[in-house]
Amino acid sequence: MTAPREHRRAVRVGLLGAGTVGQALLRLLVEEAVALERRAGVALEVTRVAVRDPGRRRGVGLPPGVVSADPASVVHAPDVDVVVELMGGVHPALELVMAALGEGKPVVTANKELVAAHGPELFAAAQAANVDLLFEAAVGGAIPLVRPLRESLAGEHFTRVIGIVNGTTNYILTRMSEAGLGFEAALLEAQQLGYAEREPSADLDGHDAAAKAAILASLAFGVEVRGSDVAREGIRRLDAADVAYARRLGQEVRLLAIAERVAPGPPPVVSVRVHPALVPRSHPLASVRDVNNAVFLEGAAVGELMLYGRGAGGDPTAAAVLGDLIDAAHNHGGGRPGRLAPHQPVRLQPLAERRVAIYVGLEVQDQAGVLASVAAVFGRHGVSIRSMEQIGLGEGARLAFLTHEAGEQDVAATLAELAALDAVNRVGAPLRALGPVG
Amino acid sequence: MTAPREHRRAVRVGLLGAGTVGQALLRLLVEEAVALERRAGVALEVTRVAVRDPGRRRGVGLPPGVVSADPASVVHAPDVDVVVELMGGVHPALELVMAALGEGKPVVTANKELVAAHGPELFAAAQAANVDLLFEAAVGGAIPLVRPLRESLAGEHFTRVIGIVNGTTNYILTRMSEAGLGFEAALLEAQQLGYAEREPSADLDGHDAAAKAAILASLAFGVEVRGSDVAREGIRRLDAADVAYARRLGQEVRLLAIAERVAPGPPPVVSVRVHPALVPRSHPLASVRDVNNAVFLEGAAVGELMLYGRGAGGDPTAAAVLGDLIDAAHNHGGGRPGRLAPHQPVRLQPLAERRVAIYVGLEVQDQAGVLASVAAVFGRHGVSIRSMEQIGLGEGARLAFLTHEAGEQDVAATLAELAALDAVNRVGAPLRALGPVG
Repeated sequence: MTAPREHRRAVRVGLLGAGTVGQALLRLLVEEAVALERRAGVALEVTRVAVRDPGRRRGVGLPPGVVSADPASVVHAPDVDVVVELMGGVHPALELVMAALGEGKPVVTANKELVAAHGPELFAAAQAANVDLLFEAAVGGAIPLVRPLRESLAGEHFTRVIGIVNGTTNYILTRMSEAGLGFEAALLEAQQLGYAEREPSADLDGHDAAAKAAILASLAFGVEVRGSDVAREGIRRLDAADVAYARRLGQEVRLLAIAERVAPGPPPVVSVRVHPALVPRSHPLASVRDVNNAVFLEGAAVGELMLYGRGAGGDPTAAAVLGDLIDAAHNHGGGRPGRLAPHQPVRLQPLAERRVAIYVGLEVQDQAGVLASVAAVFGRHGVSIRSMEQIGLGEGARLAFLTHEAGEQDVAATLAELAALDAVNRVGAPLRALGPVG
Repeated sequence: MTAPREHRRAVRVGLLGAGTVGQALLRLLVEEAVALERRAGVALEVTRVAVRDPGRRRGVGLPPGVVSADPASVVHAPDVDVVVELMGGVHPALELVMAALGEGKPVVTANKELVAAHGPELFAAAQAANVDLLFEAAVGGAIPLVRPLRESLAGEHFTRVIGIVNGTTNYILTRMSEAGLGFEAALLEAQQLGYAEREPSADLDGHDAAAKAAILASLAFGVEVRGSDVAREGIRRLDAADVAYARRLGQEVRLLAIAERVAPGPPPVVSVRVHPALVPRSHPLASVRDVNNAVFLEGAAVGELMLYGRGAGGDPTAAAVLGDLIDAAHNHGGGRPGRLAPHQPVRLQPLAERRVAIYVGLEVQDQAGVLASVAAVFGRHGVSIRSMEQIGLGEGARLAFLTHEAGEQDVAATLAELAALDAVNRVGAPLRALGPVG
């Protein structure tokens, strides 16, 4: 037993990147230093900041000599105890984080691409150096997810994790559902409000959600899953009619990141995927609106849990980084970093083995026999139709299909063949059902 | 820097109490020992269990010699490294936990009464001994709350915490709202389902929620608040008509535990209270149904967060205890317990300083001039009426009032004087508004 900790000197922080999140973090660290030290029980001092353009004015005043354009010099500086990486992207963030860990410096990062692409190597480097590698801000912004999964629920046997982890697409889907906007109009609105980038494909095509799905799967199941392992469909092909039809079925449309434990193994078999889905309105995830995020957890002992909040933005993300930074600062010098769960190799469930019930809307030509030829395609692939409804008449006519459960591959083959039919103008995005429909 | 941790011998657990939660914990520890050790990275062995009646058969088989009737012998046993207290109640749990901490043994407890009544002394004893005192299961069952507040969000400046922390009352209120049941019928149903005790006053009168409110306030604001500091109103006086009227206003009725930071101090001024309230249906807390719990957090940087799940029950509570136990086991021997936030003295906001808008339903006699005399009482205390509606006619007539914001004391004086009016048969439970009404 050692004596109670006494007051120690400030822990010195080196910051890589001072964009929106970095500036919010600097504001918290510099302007609220006194209150923070009282609350957190540790003093933090920003000694180095690497930015792309050191000449640019920033909101927070920093002493001269602190700002530089050379991130490597920040990592290696002798007056930096802890490195905070907020640059984003895989390179050169990976090299810089590995260098910091290699010098025995703990690292806090908000970089989901980096953790999703190189988690196993990074965890191994942190473990070898016996220092912290913390990334609470990489998924779900301010929502506490990483620490609860790693620590509070370390003994839990999780069976499924379902997340709404991309605020941009959730905003678009909320507006399509509640205001009846079309996809393009909702996207434009999101861009005007600053919720979507001018080049929005990372959000719309599910890349961002896939990186977070990989991180959630790794944490919940203790397995090695990378962003590139995640099956991914975005929301571009959805239109207002699909969303309106879903509502009539008592469902909301959400872009879900799903990680599911399929078989215990070894190696454990998991399914990790991102796709738009029908969520019954009574499900807690259906009430997650606008840019909010939430992660819904199903476990053997805990039953159901949901963690909800702002998934992005400078202040919420900085709050999560700050929590990690305080943790790293407390552990620093004691040689007792936070626990890293052991990560096992995993087998990803092949598409061929999954079964799904889907909704799909087809725009068809106004001619006799269309339904018969469409139904024949479903039948040929063994996909059984549960209900069909014609919406509208003439040129804009639309057929809405709900299927029984069928193999993912058979569904994919059905949709591909439908798209090739002359009588079909357009095949909408398939929506997989999360729960009972209708 | 020390070398990476190698495999250590099992950490030996002494368990005080083997009721529902204790047996669920034993099942997890004994029957899933291998999977648990892999997931958690630490081996746990139950070496001692104290129970009231050692002769009774239990679901989990334990080696002979493990079970005893003497909890003190478990605390002091040399083959116990960590003590888990699941007895409930303040005495003798307090003495046993203090004894364990005094011997330098970390303690995990699910005992909300104990933490709410003696938190400051317990934290001081744990700090002096430099060992863990963990109590994730004391609030919100399996919902990760304590660790997120202490660690993930350690840097956050919280302004308000609003919890639905009692599953029994939430079940009753859900049934009153959704099935139109009266209070007695809903209580009976809850008792038949095992959600309410035969002697339900700890739940119905808000004692249980008050203990949890004190713990939440202490964690969120880093202050010393005890269960006895919490202003408390229960749900016994609510009836079906109140709940139905609330619904027509677009509101749900929920028993809320609220901790609010009113002034920065020093000492900081906080308001901590438990009472039934009107929650706008668009608020995330309104969607918390049945026996579920949730805690809604408002902070300067994080914005809004909500943590949702099962707040009670053997398995969910055992899952939270297990998370703490794994944590304590990891820290054990390293002399580096988890952080205890420094807790400041606090000033509780006096009732006289609070302002509230309320809804209240009155059952009145069928006679002329009743409304005038009732309105005069409101007027005399300076409580301004925003809307009034008569519901029904004749003997069962009822007046439903919504007020503008007024002082809590003036509202209390108004209700007391109304109850004394001859023309008023019954004053319903006042419902404070959480957000905008109507």
